[in-house]
Parts: sequence; structure tokens; C-alpha cells
Amino acid sequence: MLARRLRPAVAARWPSQQLLARCYSAQPKGTPDIDASALTIEKTTAPKPLLDAKDLIFGRTFTDHMLSVEWTAQDGWLPPRITPYQNLSLDPATCVLHYAFTCFEGMKAYKDADDRIRLFRPDRNMHRLNRSSARIALPTFNHDTFIDLISKFVNLEERFIPKQKGYSLYLRPTMIGTQKTLGVGPPGSALLYLIASPVGPYYPTGFKAVTLEATEYAVRAWPGGVGDRKLGANYAPCIVPQIDAAKRGFQQNLWLFGEEGYVTEVGTMNMFVAWVNEEGVKELITAPLDGTILEGVTRESVLALARERLVPEGWQVSEKKFTMAQMKKAADEGRLLEAFGAGTAAVVSPIKGVSWRNQDIKIPLSPGKETGPLAEKFWNWISEIQYGETSHPWSYVVPK
Amino acid sequence: MLARRLRPAVAARWPSQQLLARCYSAQPKGTPDIDASALTIEKTTAPKPLLDAKDLIFGRTFTDHMLSVEWTAQDGWLPPRITPYQNLSLDPATCVLHYAFTCFEGMKAYKDADDRIRLFRPDRNMHRLNRSSARIALPTFNHDTFIDLISKFVNLEERFIPKQKGYSLYLRPTMIGTQKTLGVGPPGSALLYLIASPVGPYYPTGFKAVTLEATEYAVRAWPGGVGDRKLGANYAPCIVPQIDAAKRGFQQNLWLFGEEGYVTEVGTMNMFVAWVNEEGVKELITAPLDGTILEGVTRESVLALARERLVPEGWQVSEKKFTMAQMKKAADEGRLLEAFGAGTAAVVSPIKGVSWRNQDIKIPLSPGKETGPLAEKFWNWISEIQYGETSHPWSYVVPK
Repeated sequence: MLARRLRPAVAARWPSQQLLARCYSAQPKGTPDIDASALTIEKTTAPKPLLDAKDLIFGRTFTDHMLSVEWTAQDGWLPPRITPYQNLSLDPATCVLHYAFTCFEGMKAYKDADDRIRLFRPDRNMHRLNRSSARIALPTFNHDTFIDLISKFVNLEERFIPKQKGYSLYLRPTMIGTQKTLGVGPPGSALLYLIASPVGPYYPTGFKAVTLEATEYAVRAWPGGVGDRKLGANYAPCIVPQIDAAKRGFQQNLWLFGEEGYVTEVGTMNMFVAWVNEEGVKELITAPLDGTILEGVTRESVLALARERLVPEGWQVSEKKFTMAQMKKAADEGRLLEAFGAGTAAVVSPIKGVSWRNQDIKIPLSPGKETGPLAEKFWNWISEIQYGETSHPWSYVVPK
Repeated sequence: MLARRLRPAVAARWPSQQLLARCYSAQPKGTPDIDASALTIEKTTAPKPLLDAKDLIFGRTFTDHMLSVEWTAQDGWLPPRITPYQNLSLDPATCVLHYAFTCFEGMKAYKDADDRIRLFRPDRNMHRLNRSSARIALPTFNHDTFIDLISKFVNLEERFIPKQKGYSLYLRPTMIGTQKTLGVGPPGSALLYLIASPVGPYYPTGFKAVTLEATEYAVRAWPGGVGDRKLGANYAPCIVPQIDAAKRGFQQNLWLFGEEGYVTEVGTMNMFVAWVNEEGVKELITAPLDGTILEGVTRESVLALARERLVPEGWQVSEKKFTMAQMKKAADEGRLLEAFGAGTAAVVSPIKGVSWRNQDIKIPLSPGKETGPLAEKFWNWISEIQYGETSHPWSYVVPK
């Protein structure tokens, strides 16, 4: 009911989302949106044992339940269901298995010191999921209603949210096309579901800076493509280059674009560089939202915090194109200060080097340190908000 | 056994495939390839009624059985199974549902006048499926073994292959990643399966020429991407532009590339244009295999037949880049002769117009005709081979 009353306000907040929904959404006019009040809950009769916090591996074990909402073109969204975690039964002709009708989100639920459950900017994930979904002709839905359902779900799964700082319950909302015919067209049915996996800290023993391979022979995304949407289609094609980079000793690919060698993103993280720019000003720079990089929620948060807290200290904060050649020149001239990735999994991931055209660009770290001061700052600022140690509107306290 | 004896010869035939397998394949050395002799068959106890040939719709109804071969990184390919057609039971964390680990093929089984079952160039489909699979870190397999299994399958499903010319049994080999964890990496398990759908002729009442919308605002594929592989990832992102083109009255998108407006492909078909070129020579032209177009089996067949049968008549046959501006100029100067798409579904699909930057490029058709003479010739030539009316090495007679 709450969700329904909120809807006009939400619509006003997201004009771009409205426009998108009008252009792209498979949701026919007049069919029902998700109705949180129709939720049914079937509890498991075989609760899983909790793993020791130290044994948690990202996305390998899941909680007792899952949340599912089916959609059909004819009837719109059907009543949401929480059921025991269970296999999906899919016809082998189901369109997600053939044409990659899938998009997803990554977000986390945190336990604060007062035992309350918190989400971090869940509206941003819902906004992006709707944009992803609409881009591949899957249905859209009301943000607040689904956050309401997620809240009910995480309350039910509360025992799986580790209390220690750095631990969380990873949430994976996923939307798949379920039409079971092979014609290439918009799916007439879909399934929105949520599964959850308890996870430990990305750096259990403190930061560990990574080295990247700047990748030009394979190209992750293109203007006019779908690299700015969180579609399954953006992931499978990046695995072989990732394996190849790993064979050469690099943890991740740094995806470049064009003859100019523009720095885009890391595939699982957005890329930030701190340098003294050619004008002699300290600058934190990241690639702009030009359609070739994912619109990261952590990216957006880093930028907002940097504008609020670093600009007064004399930093310039830029969303604009920059190249590997500029990074190399800055390194050669001693102007390169720091680099880090930003994403939900690690919050920030310090980078100590990039290999580019057989040259190693070293990113300075203080002796004995595995992170630069900026990355550490952002990690602290964002973690404090996520765990409710600092009061901030980005942290959403889940109602009991 | 046959497959096993053939293997060295096959390997020699496909050096590029060997190379690919070495670079990319997830198949660890020493784990077993598919063993056709280990096939088990569980027949259905509830055979489906056959539909009237006139009621067949592409990819909507399927035969009684399916063929499945599971793979794990540890044990390689497990024994193949033919079972009743049935739902797949997939953990909601299965990687195909999140990261689009899926590739597939489209091929057909035909009934000839002597009631023999024929396939059309199945080695080309197997070759491409292996290349697609390797590109997304899924396993590869021996071509001939899988053709052997397909042969057994189509024999079992023989009653579903309509005997009329133009009808066939559409075969959909599909490979999906089945690892059930959310880490972004190479799948440790996969499923290769085959389902089949009886289909009628693409043009039940004779050719029907289509109009295309030349699409620039969205980009299907790019150099360094995966547009030359038959991955699910290439399909979902094309649906919204397809819906938009349909709203404006166009049957398909003609995907352009770059500022130059290079003509690439139609998404479900390769694109052929016949014109009198600027040197005054009759030319049949199609885009080259530069990584941005699918390596169509029908495309390759049209080119081979054109070189054999049209070149002696004075035609030039070209695989090279050409632009919409060149097509427009040819149309304006009366040099544009014909255009058609080529693909498994329709063999050839005549095109009567392309809309480009709000200009309509008309492609001439004789009064009362829905196809040009070249498209009709290729349709006849290829259909005759597919249905065994002409003896040709491309037609593979399935052993009983």
C-alpha cells in the first residue's frame, strides 16, 4: 500500500526512467504493476546450516529462500512469491537460453551495530534494472514496490546476514525472458527473481592492490551498443580475454576504446585515476557515461563524495575521456598519484599497475602499503554509510 | 566408431578450428571428447500428435525427444542421452541465466523424394558452434561425433519431418554454461543439447519482398567484439530496435557500421546486393568477414554458387565493404539491380526497399514479381541441393 501511495512522487523523481519506460517497456498499458500486498510466503522446512564466516565464498552458497515475480504480456505482473530456494524448471526452448534475455543487479544488505538491516542506495539499483530490462524488451516495474519486497525478503533471511563489519548478504535481482518459442522477438513472459548469498569482505586481510592488462585486441562495448546496461550479454564475451590476462599474470582487463586508447572500465568495476593534470591541478578522473561504461552505483557515490569532500581540499573531479597515453605520460612525469576500481563487490579496489602495449605503468604506493590514500578514504566513507556508522540518506534502513 | 576413425582427417581439414581450440577451449587436455557409442535412448511413452503441415509455426512446437550431452571441466564430455523432450531443471544461480553463457546453431533436416533424410552442410554448423563456444569459454567437441548423434536423433524423429518440398525439421543445437555460482569466470560445467521443431516454408504463398530500415542509432557489432559468433548475446540487444523498425513499417533492421555507413547484415540474414558497379561491371556484393557479421552458412553457399555459376556469365562476385551511400547512388543512377538476405530460415529473402536517413531506396522488381531473378536462382539452386533433387557434396544423407 505504501508503495502505491508513493508512486507519483517516484515517477516525478525519475523523468528519464518514465521516458524510457514509454519508449521501450514491454509492459502494456493497463496491465498491473507488481503488487507487494499480494506477496505469499512459503517457508522452508529444511533450513540450511550457517557457514562459518571465514568459509563464505562470493556467490557460492545461498540463503533458504528466493523471491519470484512472474510477468506475462497479457496479465502483467502476477502475485509475488517467496518460496524455498529451488531450481527453475525451464523448457529447453526458453528464450533466455538462446537469445540472452537476461539482466541483473548486484547489491548488498548490511547489519548495523543496532542489529538493523540496511541497503545502500537500492533506488539506484532498481532504476538501473528497469533501464537494463527495457533495453532488451523485458518488462519494467515500480522501484519502491520491489524495494518493499526485498525488505520483506531480507527480514526473513536475517540470520544469513553476518554481523561483522565487511560482511554482508549479497543480493542478486535477476530478470529473464521465459517465452518458450524460438522466434526472435520480444518475450511474452518473464521472471523477476532474487537470490541471496552471504559474503565476506573482499579483502579479508587488508587491501591487496591489483595489476590490470590494458586490453585493445578485444573490445567490451561500443557507442550505440549495450555496454551501459547490466545485461548478461556484456559478461560472457569478456571471459576469454580475462583468462588470457590472468595467464599473463594480470587480475583483470582494463578495457580500452578506439585508436586513441580511451580508458573505459574494468568490466566488473569502474576505473578512477588520481593525478596532477597537465595544468598542474590535482584531479580525480573517471570515464564519462557515454554509453560504453556501466553506470556504477559505487562510481556515482565516489563522484558525489569527491565533489562534496575533495573539491574543498583543492581537488578537481572530472567525468571525461582520458587515454592510456595520458596515464603513461603522467606516470613518466611523476604526476600519477593513484588508481582504483569502484564496484559493489569491493567498494574500491586499489590498482598498482597497468600493462599497456608491453609497457608497465607503475602506480605509486607508499612502502608497505597496498592502497593509496584516496582509495582508502572512499572505502572508509562508503563503508561507514553502508554499515550505518555515519547517518546518510544513501543508507536505507529496512523496516522490520 | 566411425567418428573416431575419422577424427585425424577432420582435424587436418580444420586447422583454424584446432588453433582456436588450443587458444580458447575450456576442454582440458586428456578429458574425453563426446563418445557417440555411449549414447542411451529413452523413448517417450506419450508420442505427440503431428500437426497439420499448414499449422506449423517456426520454433513453436517441438518433437518427442531431445538430445543432451553434459560436460564438466573435471570429467569432460559425459555419455550422450536422448530422452523425452522435457524441462531443464536449473539452479537460479546457473551462469547462463546471469552472464549469457549461450551459443547455438540453426540447421534443418529435409526429406528427399526417396524418403531419405538429408542435412545441409552440417560440418559448417558444427565448425561455427565450436568457434562460438570457444569464444565464451565453453567446451568444444568433435564435429563428426555430434553429426553422428544428430543423425541418430533425426532418424528417431523421422515422423516429424514433413515430406513436402519447402518443409523441414528445424534443428537447434544449443550450448549453455551450467555452473551454479555467481563468480564471473569460465563455467566449470556445460550442457550441449538439441531440440527440433517441424517448420513450413518461409514463403508459403510465394516470395514476399521485404523492406528494411537502415539502422545507425543502435550498433549490432563492432571490430574486436563478438558479432561474428552465434552467441545469444548478439540477439536480445537487437529486439528493441527491431520493434521500433516494425512500428515504422519495416520488417527488419539493416545494421550499418561506422560514420561511413557500411552495410553489415540484417541480424537474422546476411545481406547481398546486385548492381552494375561504378566500373560498369555486374557485381554481386556482400560484406566481408571482418568480425562484425555472422559467418552465414547460406552466405558461404551463395558465394560459392555465384562463383561457380554466375562468374562464367560475366558477373563479378565480391566480399568487400560497401556503403549505404553507394547503394543510394546506384539506385539513383539506375544501376541497382537486386538485393536479398540469405539465411537458414528463408534461404533467400528478397528485399524491395531500404529506408536510410529518411530516404527510401527502392530496389527494382519486375511488375507483379516479389523477387528478382538472382534471388530466385539461388533459392532454386540451394533448395534443389537441400532436398536432394540435384546431387551435391553439400547434401549429407543421414545413414539409417
